[in-house]
Amino acid sequence: MFNVAILGFGTVGSGVYEVIKENNALLKQKTGEDIAVKKILDIRDFPDSEWESLVVHDIKEIIEDNDIDAVVETMGGTSPAFEFVRDALLSGKHVTTSNKALVAAHGTELLKIAKEKNVNFFFEASVGGGIPIIRTLTESYAGEHFKEITGILNGTTNYILTKMDAEGEDFEKALSTAQELGYAERNPEADVQGHDTCRKIAILASLATGKEVNFEEIYTEGITKIDTTDFEYAKYMKLSIKLFGDSKFEDGMVYAFVAPVMVERDHPLYMVNDVFNGIMVEGNMLGKSMLYGSGAGKLPTASAVVADIIAITKNKDKNIPFGWVNEKQAVADMSETSHKYFVRFKGKDTQFINKCKETFKDAKEVYLDGKDEFALVTGLMKEKDFLMDLNNLGSVIKYIRTKIA
Amino acid sequence: MFNVAILGFGTVGSGVYEVIKENNALLKQKTGEDIAVKKILDIRDFPDSEWESLVVHDIKEIIEDNDIDAVVETMGGTSPAFEFVRDALLSGKHVTTSNKALVAAHGTELLKIAKEKNVNFFFEASVGGGIPIIRTLTESYAGEHFKEITGILNGTTNYILTKMDAEGEDFEKALSTAQELGYAERNPEADVQGHDTCRKIAILASLATGKEVNFEEIYTEGITKIDTTDFEYAKYMKLSIKLFGDSKFEDGMVYAFVAPVMVERDHPLYMVNDVFNGIMVEGNMLGKSMLYGSGAGKLPTASAVVADIIAITKNKDKNIPFGWVNEKQAVADMSETSHKYFVRFKGKDTQFINKCKETFKDAKEVYLDGKDEFALVTGLMKEKDFLMDLNNLGSVIKYIRTKIA
Repeated sequence: MFNVAILGFGTVGSGVYEVIKENNALLKQKTGEDIAVKKILDIRDFPDSEWESLVVHDIKEIIEDNDIDAVVETMGGTSPAFEFVRDALLSGKHVTTSNKALVAAHGTELLKIAKEKNVNFFFEASVGGGIPIIRTLTESYAGEHFKEITGILNGTTNYILTKMDAEGEDFEKALSTAQELGYAERNPEADVQGHDTCRKIAILASLATGKEVNFEEIYTEGITKIDTTDFEYAKYMKLSIKLFGDSKFEDGMVYAFVAPVMVERDHPLYMVNDVFNGIMVEGNMLGKSMLYGSGAGKLPTASAVVADIIAITKNKDKNIPFGWVNEKQAVADMSETSHKYFVRFKGKDTQFINKCKETFKDAKEVYLDGKDEFALVTGLMKEKDFLMDLNNLGSVIKYIRTKIA
Repeated sequence: MFNVAILGFGTVGSGVYEVIKENNALLKQKTGEDIAVKKILDIRDFPDSEWESLVVHDIKEIIEDNDIDAVVETMGGTSPAFEFVRDALLSGKHVTTSNKALVAAHGTELLKIAKEKNVNFFFEASVGGGIPIIRTLTESYAGEHFKEITGILNGTTNYILTKMDAEGEDFEKALSTAQELGYAERNPEADVQGHDTCRKIAILASLATGKEVNFEEIYTEGITKIDTTDFEYAKYMKLSIKLFGDSKFEDGMVYAFVAPVMVERDHPLYMVNDVFNGIMVEGNMLGKSMLYGSGAGKLPTASAVVADIIAITKNKDKNIPFGWVNEKQAVADMSETSHKYFVRFKGKDTQFINKCKETFKDAKEVYLDGKDEFALVTGLMKEKDFLMDLNNLGSVIKYIRTKIA
């Protein structure tokens, strides 16, 4: 018998219970172990549910239970999740978590404890839900020098942007549809402001470099200012607008950001729509590859947690090294990153247009019928140079970075 | 020192040499081992090359060398590759191969020997080149009951079909371009007749079921009969034509085939163009996911081999079970599979068209200007019923299966 305890019986936690129950015979066949949920920590009682008898309210009942082999943390947040996970590891239990906030804030610290106690701390479900990006980066692509990892890492914002693109809805309308369908929370800030994506790209960039990329150092811009006119321009140029978490690796430096970007059709992530996620990885030998799937949702995320449980059963007496150490990774300031920019300017004054064209010599102009404005798509420029030019010109409505080859 | 021998110094073999050399410091950091190529088996001598001194012509010099820890088999074909790999495993060496013919024909037998000798037989590079599909199926998705695995698994044919689609070229022209660019071999039969794809989908279906799917039982149709008119219809219907290796899993039965299919834009594999490969996996908990990348090519394939070498260094004293056993998996006859069919009929006789519409009640008609023919897209039907109907109707130009929801 391999006993598991689940901390937090919300969407993902109850999904883990369901996957373990539903695919139990298969799990036994694959691992040789009878995997069972022995305890569930939650503040609720769940009277008359089939798991009622498993519920406990005190973490000690799990930490001090020597029959529990592994702990699944699906509470979210950093406290008390951090303390609970730390104590579970210290008590010699393996842990898997779906909690990106926890991994982004305390990943290396928890990996260190796991190593000392010769157990495993896994977190496949913390990024990309059912997309096996963590195991792919750390195992399948272990021999690669990474050049870029970039992804659509948040299903809520991708759903909103897909609706805006396909149906011409404005942000508020698309958000409220997403909320009605349960794709966005009532307080959607963590998603729409890009904070969720920021933690996820920080984790991926950390694994790519093997060092700590502090998510607080990653420039983060949400999608709340994207409007229907932006999508009209995008459509005219055969582009779409997606929220990217992006990281490039060059000469020991990480260039990372979270922001809406205009994407062209040839980009592997262009076709990632609705609540799906996609992650593109470029390695020095591998070239470009892409993983696509359900980035969130009860069962896909639970499936990733269960994959970790399977890996734990196969490595019960051994700590699997992640090659991610407690050493600070330098992150370049956003002003040092380079992009091709889409910029909207007020008015259609010929003299001003000419001045803009002189400033951005290799820019392409874009005009939409019936709008008292115009737009440019610049060549590749450093953000600090671009912003200085914009500042000198004035009359800027907004700019959006692009992913155009 | 962790010593590797490479069998066959062609495209992939020399790529493995290059990746080990180029990313050597990284490999040491990730594995703690100094990985080196100690010997290379080839019929050639490579005078004046930097690896000249490593070349041997007799497999015994490798099998009997106790300093060699792992053998990389990149010769291709089943003989003598099978005998060489078998003997390497029997001598207690780990093996990784990029050879799908070997894995499809002898996979379980070699896994059994590896298990008995407590070494590993890995084959990540045998399917999908740089796409980590083997490890994803056997580790990340180990807890899934699979519903479908379907893929664009051959870069040569995908390049040809992409050219035909984008530029209206006929098959012969696109093939000769592919040959000029080195994407197709001078004798392209294994690719264009679908045999390469057949072996790959057999391996994936085997891993999904954990049993032996005999590739000889998988219906296999190539792309040589696809013509420019097919693509005109496809374009008109906003579809593309791709060569799929497809496998569905239902009630213990595998429904598998290799054939060109008409794919709609919403399908995750629609955007897989040029020499790229893509594999879609649907699991009972996971939902749909997709992996995309370079399916062939020197360095991407070599990168997958090196990922196996890394895994071997981490599991030097331990056989990793694959859950793939020497037990026959039942494969349904093609006549039992179900599809929506695109069918072209000669002429435009109203009476005949009506007869066709009566036969295929839920079919949609398609007419192209200036053609003395018409087409139907049927509803979902069993292949044997479809073929019986076609036989009764006559006047068939051709049919193509579709992937339309």
